[in-house]
Amino acid sequence: MINRQMLALGTNRSVIRDLFEYGNQRAKEVGADRIYDFSLGNPSVPSPRAVEDAIRAILTEEDPVAIHGYTSAVGSEATRKAIADDLNRRYGTDYTADEILLTCGAAASLIAVLRALLTKEAPEIITIAPFFPEYRCFVEANGGVLRVIPAQEDDFQIDFNALEAALSEKTAAVLINTPNNPSGAVYSEETLRALSSLLEEKSRAAGQPIYLISDEPYRELVYEGPAPFPAKTYKNTVICYSYSKSLSLPGERIGYVLIPKQADDGAALLGAAAGAARASGYVCAPSLMQKVIARCADVRPDLEEYRKNRDLLYRSLTEIGYRCVYPKGAFYLFVQAPNGDGDRFSELAKEFDLLLVPGASFGCKSYLRISYCVRHEMIQNSLPAFRAAFEKAKQR
Amino acid sequence: MINRQMLALGTNRSVIRDLFEYGNQRAKEVGADRIYDFSLGNPSVPSPRAVEDAIRAILTEEDPVAIHGYTSAVGSEATRKAIADDLNRRYGTDYTADEILLTCGAAASLIAVLRALLTKEAPEIITIAPFFPEYRCFVEANGGVLRVIPAQEDDFQIDFNALEAALSEKTAAVLINTPNNPSGAVYSEETLRALSSLLEEKSRAAGQPIYLISDEPYRELVYEGPAPFPAKTYKNTVICYSYSKSLSLPGERIGYVLIPKQADDGAALLGAAAGAARASGYVCAPSLMQKVIARCADVRPDLEEYRKNRDLLYRSLTEIGYRCVYPKGAFYLFVQAPNGDGDRFSELAKEFDLLLVPGASFGCKSYLRISYCVRHEMIQNSLPAFRAAFEKAKQR
Repeated sequence: MINRQMLALGTNRSVIRDLFEYGNQRAKEVGADRIYDFSLGNPSVPSPRAVEDAIRAILTEEDPVAIHGYTSAVGSEATRKAIADDLNRRYGTDYTADEILLTCGAAASLIAVLRALLTKEAPEIITIAPFFPEYRCFVEANGGVLRVIPAQEDDFQIDFNALEAALSEKTAAVLINTPNNPSGAVYSEETLRALSSLLEEKSRAAGQPIYLISDEPYRELVYEGPAPFPAKTYKNTVICYSYSKSLSLPGERIGYVLIPKQADDGAALLGAAAGAARASGYVCAPSLMQKVIARCADVRPDLEEYRKNRDLLYRSLTEIGYRCVYPKGAFYLFVQAPNGDGDRFSELAKEFDLLLVPGASFGCKSYLRISYCVRHEMIQNSLPAFRAAFEKAKQR
Repeated sequence: MINRQMLALGTNRSVIRDLFEYGNQRAKEVGADRIYDFSLGNPSVPSPRAVEDAIRAILTEEDPVAIHGYTSAVGSEATRKAIADDLNRRYGTDYTADEILLTCGAAASLIAVLRALLTKEAPEIITIAPFFPEYRCFVEANGGVLRVIPAQEDDFQIDFNALEAALSEKTAAVLINTPNNPSGAVYSEETLRALSSLLEEKSRAAGQPIYLISDEPYRELVYEGPAPFPAKTYKNTVICYSYSKSLSLPGERIGYVLIPKQADDGAALLGAAAGAARASGYVCAPSLMQKVIARCADVRPDLEEYRKNRDLLYRSLTEIGYRCVYPKGAFYLFVQAPNGDGDRFSELAKEFDLLLVPGASFGCKSYLRISYCVRHEMIQNSLPAFRAAFEKAKQR
């Protein structure tokens, strides 16, 4: 007697993981330097020096029992205050520690919020393609229904006609991710204003707030000026953040949920998120990392390596003939399959030991995701393979 | 529109947390040294020196990107192998890395296993009083029903008649915790053999395995020789472990699930637990701590401080007249309320600034839990208050 849904989730690995494992296997056969693995979104630059300095200082300076001890379930006050202060300096907001729940990373942030929001009456979460494939698992395994708005392919902003048609009194929230995995698109101020207007109107019509869940692990990874901050535009925005990408700490599982007190039922929703965190067994965010964030809340990533990678890859691929919306953030390029089919082109690319994630699980079948959080040299070496795969696809 | 169950879980703090917060408040009023707070199970001794040494060595020696990077979802191979090797040396088992899933601590271990096991057909988890109160939340918030077997108060072993009557084809698992929070009892070899026989018989009758979930955060905290190891006696034992108590790392959220390959459907159950971990947003256990455990899997806690505390407290309280089963493990004393009612005695004790957790939420209304993971001096200073509270209770 085993739960079948959980067995399926444990057995059917994601396409991304499968490709990554395939790459490891191939690397053993032909050598790692012959494999051009663009599958994983694992930061390729180390954490800023400040992180290691903070760990060493904490070990030297702080009470050894407290360093690794339980914190309160919502997280250390000092860490939450440091986060609020940093946001307030950057965005002119007036957040306080009391509006923040520290979590075990982005997935935990999202699941805490989803479990807090999902009800029998409003079981729907709407997201916009292309979207992070794990959203489906997070929503469906926690009692919700995921509805996907097709991508607006010319710029990867939002198709508001499609979104408007999908919103109803069954909608608990709209889930966005800007800068976006996998497209690298950053929602413009105009997009966020239009989204806010629509959600306000539809909330009034539904007689209850429709929340905006803003999943922001790539907030700091932008190459052309800061990304517009969704919570400034729409008051019922719930921020889900993670330090995985910005401080290169993906394995440490540290992030937060911020629910502004000005949001409708904001305090109750934060309480429900804390209850969901309890029900999900998070207990508290990892304690040493909480202390690191207290000291590093204002540390920003060094983006030069990613920028160099993006520029080389975008320029080279478009020269070859690949078509791709210019990515302003995150560390992905989302390219159209030259043969019109992401799954088939991913298979074809494997013949050249080029590992690209097909776009179907992101909601865009004719695309592929290329993660450029890799060694710059690997990109340089991979370009002939990209050219060969392109030409082969066009021949067929 | 907020999920009411999650809101209730976030709003109604546990009795333990309430008492702890009350203590902090009182400490501000009358001074921390005047409050005798025995409420929390937070280790009072720092992590063994080997833990800090390991962190510093990892920062110096290992690849900075890998230290904080994603590991595979089941956890680093080296860490899982170190755990299996250590168990094999101690218990003569033959576990391998493939039978282990690293988790974000004991709560995550339990929830991963519960979500993997609970089905509509077998929704019941049976536990034995006294039990850790969060079991109720973990089971009920994840689709199960918790059934509690009353305590066998003369020795806090298992009332097998009551357990036998409760077992049925609806039972997914029996959940035990030895050494026990809150009683300090350690299940004897005899108890485990009788439990194994009963579960084998009832599994046959039900036509499906009834699993034994063994929650073992206190496995290493024993004062009279090693605790019998449940997985040696019953083949369908699922081990849930945490380093919170043994290495004083409660805030770091690091532990594991071990499901032996010899267990019925063992591999599928481990797969379902991994699926449940995915559905619960754990992603992977914290990466730096995974590396610490790879180096410290055979490090044992120094128990001298806890032993001194236990001996002083047990001797002194029984001399005053409190009645208590002699605790062989963990760091709790579970005493009978002198007035026969745990809630009322907890209130009365507050008059003497003595903070004791009432037993009701552990399934034993006439008891109180005393955590002795505190400064030895506090115990010495608290003894007059224990005497005064006892005498006042007897007068009434």
